Amino acid sequence: MSESNSVLVGKKPIMNYVLACITLFHGGAKEVHVKARGRAISRAVDVVEVVRRRFLPDVKIKKVGIGTEQVTAKVEGSAPTNVSTIEITLER
Amino acid sequence: MSESNSVLVGKKPIMNYVLACITLFHGGAKEVHVKARGRAISRAVDVVEVVRRRFLPDVKIKKVGIGTEQVTAKVEGSAPTNVSTIEITLER
Repeated sequence: MSESNSVLVGKKPIMNYVLACITLFHGGAKEVHVKARGRAISRAVDVVEVVRRRFLPDVKIKKVGIGTEQVTAKVEGSAPTNVSTIEITLER
Repeated sequence: MSESNSVLVGKKPIMNYVLACITLFHGGAKEVHVKARGRAISRAVDVVEVVRRRFLPDVKIKKVGIGTEQVTAKVEGSAPTNVSTIEITLER
């Protein structure tokens, strides 16, 4: 249930993810989880700031969690690498 | 006082900032603030994860704050732009 209210931030323009968040809140979501890995982390923070400051000022940041995920390398035999993750929980 | 225990993450290699954090903790700091702006945000998360997972497993993340700062443009007359910020408070 909570998983369906997730926005995974990647390489698309920031406004795509901003719109995804707004759509979820307008659809009645009380919480939206904005997630990202690696370099997209700074983009996830941008998304949250644009949502809060430009569109939905009543949305609060409930929690920010950071962590590490292991990524199995694409090339067979090479060691798995670590990638940082962020999960920002927004609450209305 | 708390300001002196800050590590501002920029464009240098991650290990520079990791070492700065470790040095502060070894110098007796109870809290270290890891800060970054813009694209360096993902790098700040990397720094924190390396500190915690590889060097100081007893360090906990006390708080993660995100925000926006206004940057006055370098070119005279152009509008100020917004940049996202992060501040991760580490506690031993």
